[in-house]
Amino acid sequence: MSASRMGSVIAAGGRTSAAVTQDLQKDVAKSTPKPMLDLKPPRATRDFYPEDMALRTWLFNHWRDTAALHGFEEYDAPVLESEELFIRKAGEDVSQQLYNLEDRSGRRLSLRPEMTPSLARMVLAKRNGLALPLKWFSIPQCWRYERATRGRRREHYQWNLDVWGVDGLQVEAELLSAAITFMKAVGLTSAEVGVKISTRAVLAELLPRLGVPPERFASTCVLVDKLDKLPEDQIVEALTEAGMTAENSKTLLEALDIRSFDALQELMGADSPAVQELETLFDLAKAYGYEDWLVLDLSVVRGLAYYTGVVFEGFDRSGELRAIFGGGRYNKLLSTFGGDDLPAAGFGFGDAVIVELLKNHALLPSLSASPAQIVVFPMQEELRSTAVQVASSLRAAGSRVDLTLEPKKTKWLFKHADRLEASHVVIIGTSEFEQGNVRIKRLSDGEQQDVPIAELTKWALALNEAPKK
Amino acid sequence: MSASRMGSVIAAGGRTSAAVTQDLQKDVAKSTPKPMLDLKPPRATRDFYPEDMALRTWLFNHWRDTAALHGFEEYDAPVLESEELFIRKAGEDVSQQLYNLEDRSGRRLSLRPEMTPSLARMVLAKRNGLALPLKWFSIPQCWRYERATRGRRREHYQWNLDVWGVDGLQVEAELLSAAITFMKAVGLTSAEVGVKISTRAVLAELLPRLGVPPERFASTCVLVDKLDKLPEDQIVEALTEAGMTAENSKTLLEALDIRSFDALQELMGADSPAVQELETLFDLAKAYGYEDWLVLDLSVVRGLAYYTGVVFEGFDRSGELRAIFGGGRYNKLLSTFGGDDLPAAGFGFGDAVIVELLKNHALLPSLSASPAQIVVFPMQEELRSTAVQVASSLRAAGSRVDLTLEPKKTKWLFKHADRLEASHVVIIGTSEFEQGNVRIKRLSDGEQQDVPIAELTKWALALNEAPKK
Repeated sequence: MSASRMGSVIAAGGRTSAAVTQDLQKDVAKSTPKPMLDLKPPRATRDFYPEDMALRTWLFNHWRDTAALHGFEEYDAPVLESEELFIRKAGEDVSQQLYNLEDRSGRRLSLRPEMTPSLARMVLAKRNGLALPLKWFSIPQCWRYERATRGRRREHYQWNLDVWGVDGLQVEAELLSAAITFMKAVGLTSAEVGVKISTRAVLAELLPRLGVPPERFASTCVLVDKLDKLPEDQIVEALTEAGMTAENSKTLLEALDIRSFDALQELMGADSPAVQELETLFDLAKAYGYEDWLVLDLSVVRGLAYYTGVVFEGFDRSGELRAIFGGGRYNKLLSTFGGDDLPAAGFGFGDAVIVELLKNHALLPSLSASPAQIVVFPMQEELRSTAVQVASSLRAAGSRVDLTLEPKKTKWLFKHADRLEASHVVIIGTSEFEQGNVRIKRLSDGEQQDVPIAELTKWALALNEAPKK
Repeated sequence: MSASRMGSVIAAGGRTSAAVTQDLQKDVAKSTPKPMLDLKPPRATRDFYPEDMALRTWLFNHWRDTAALHGFEEYDAPVLESEELFIRKAGEDVSQQLYNLEDRSGRRLSLRPEMTPSLARMVLAKRNGLALPLKWFSIPQCWRYERATRGRRREHYQWNLDVWGVDGLQVEAELLSAAITFMKAVGLTSAEVGVKISTRAVLAELLPRLGVPPERFASTCVLVDKLDKLPEDQIVEALTEAGMTAENSKTLLEALDIRSFDALQELMGADSPAVQELETLFDLAKAYGYEDWLVLDLSVVRGLAYYTGVVFEGFDRSGELRAIFGGGRYNKLLSTFGGDDLPAAGFGFGDAVIVELLKNHALLPSLSASPAQIVVFPMQEELRSTAVQVASSLRAAGSRVDLTLEPKKTKWLFKHADRLEASHVVIIGTSEFEQGNVRIKRLSDGEQQDVPIAELTKWALALNEAPKK
């Protein structure tokens, strides 16, 4: 009796449950009513009812299509990883924000808060077997435990695009092309969304001049990214501790306010590699035709110590929403994990802010949760086997068929077909059946025709090949 | 500086990290080399490199297409649920097989081992707002902690189809249609796969006659499902404890060996509702045209106390593999959670056994991980902005373009295009560029043509509209 073997085996094909491990003598069915279960999903997480799922699928399809247009291959990794993986990238303190667990062998595991560490692990694991450059994307769900509630969730989906193995601004330009192509595809323009551009190279040139030693560089970048969160005296104190005089601190704060190439050249000099880097990227943007989306903004540092070059961040021009997407170049990540470095750049694009933005601009699509195109309806249960044959022939022709599964009145049928946004109903009635026919009603205009059962496949093929209105 | 605010916020659009919470004074970049990270995914879990992901996408697309043909709507729920949800369905002992964690508010959470409890929770939560029947599907990843290793994984993906709100065998027949339609779509036939069919109604009629009181019914079903795992004397002992005499135990064991309607009628009587139920299902299977896949097999009970009617299980006719999929009717689940019951039936179809089976029968498709169709290649970096324009026009026409991101030799180009399984390369060379052209090489036969840059969109549209070979 092979059936029983699968009970406790997750990899088996069917529904499984640990019920089989319970005491065989103990009865599951109790006669006393059970108290009601908490019906909400865990705090700050989401259920996707079909109408929510339809929106998610629409978004993911746009992400996948855009990635494909840019020649990116999809990958994935376990949502559960070793905690060490995340600590190695982000430091011990990240543990406070992880959903952590310890398995029965004492391993510390975490739900991923981001995808990049898993990606780096996968690249390292097959380093010599992978043909460079890698152009990979994924749409992972990421989890982070936060105390803050303000309507923010603890999980989100994030479109990740990364290029590994090429160090050059054509990579950043291609990544930005993907992000912007997606936004155009969903109806956004550069009037609604901008992309702030900077490079760590500006700080890399500037900070040594201002007295910050190389080993303080990464932490000073993190500090710069937090400036607007801290009171003035703490900023000055922290910058002083980083090695800056009061005057140099002022120069730095002024530099971060720069928004034009003229001011940038004045500060850095025309020969500055940082300036040239940004100019090259803006020139490439012109070739792509998305230069009107870009904004030079030196205050963009992004709160990650691991960025090494260009950093960018999509923003809502109305100023209402948080960052829409963000990323940049991170050429030194693999050495954090003990490997040899490989140039890399990428971005993450979450599913929360973009949906808010589309809502604000009335760009959310009207979607039907139901795939049904044709409802097949037997007038009597005696005609069920005919209805089954009809449904099967329509499906064989590629039609998406909702077969009515229980005796219902025709009044229900049309309400039901309307809810499903079906285009046709196929009614199996006794008098038509006796002629070998079914009655087909087109719902857009109520036009009816009787079609011989034997010709239904032909009818459905013609329907599916007709141009969509 | 709004950029910084997103650092610690998971719902923000960009790459985030907890790095910003670390001590600002502490430097991340260390000068000493780091020890190599463990590069494997957590024990008994999988990475999906692009070639693995291509297979997963192929499988999921078939699942989604089949569900759509049958009019099912997709839903999803959090992979992390309250532990209570799973204990309520499967009993306290399920906890031993869960990936559990406790959040900072002391809530016990688990990675889902199966989807049905989340589905039941979602149905209960919106009970009055959902138009019945529900025909819902999902493809969740499920997690189970098991000591056993034998090459079995601790996570899998499972295609779940469920119908809620209709009590009748037309539901089970429609579910089986979906499972079998999928298997036919991937090239399997009833020569390779069978579906064992039984109903709990047989035991419901038989067990009282054999001395088992109603309150022992569910646990006896679980016991029956485990018969082949237990030594004979333990079986007899357990059946005796359930209320059966030695002779009745023998009758039960013989009944479970029944494989024909004749023998079944002889045991149960022609008027037996259980027999009629099974006959109706087999008649419906004839109308659908999949009766050759079905096998009457009373030993199929499935190890879940919660099934209340028909149970079924797909099996490898060669006998080599474990169950391929399984499910049945479960009309009493909601009361387990404290709600009013609603008729329901469904199945789960895992991603592990089906892939093994397709491998065994040489039915795994040959898939390219890369979506690239056209490789765009600038001969010199001076031509990059033209290459960028060319790539953008081709993408605007819907072509999937891999733009070469660094200086490479043409020898590399053709090797690269071959690896990507691209159909064309578009070469931007100086002499063609001076004529306003690019050179396009079709890789199937090496045919070359020069196409004016201004006409590339037209060329790409014609290519994408041409019938696929």
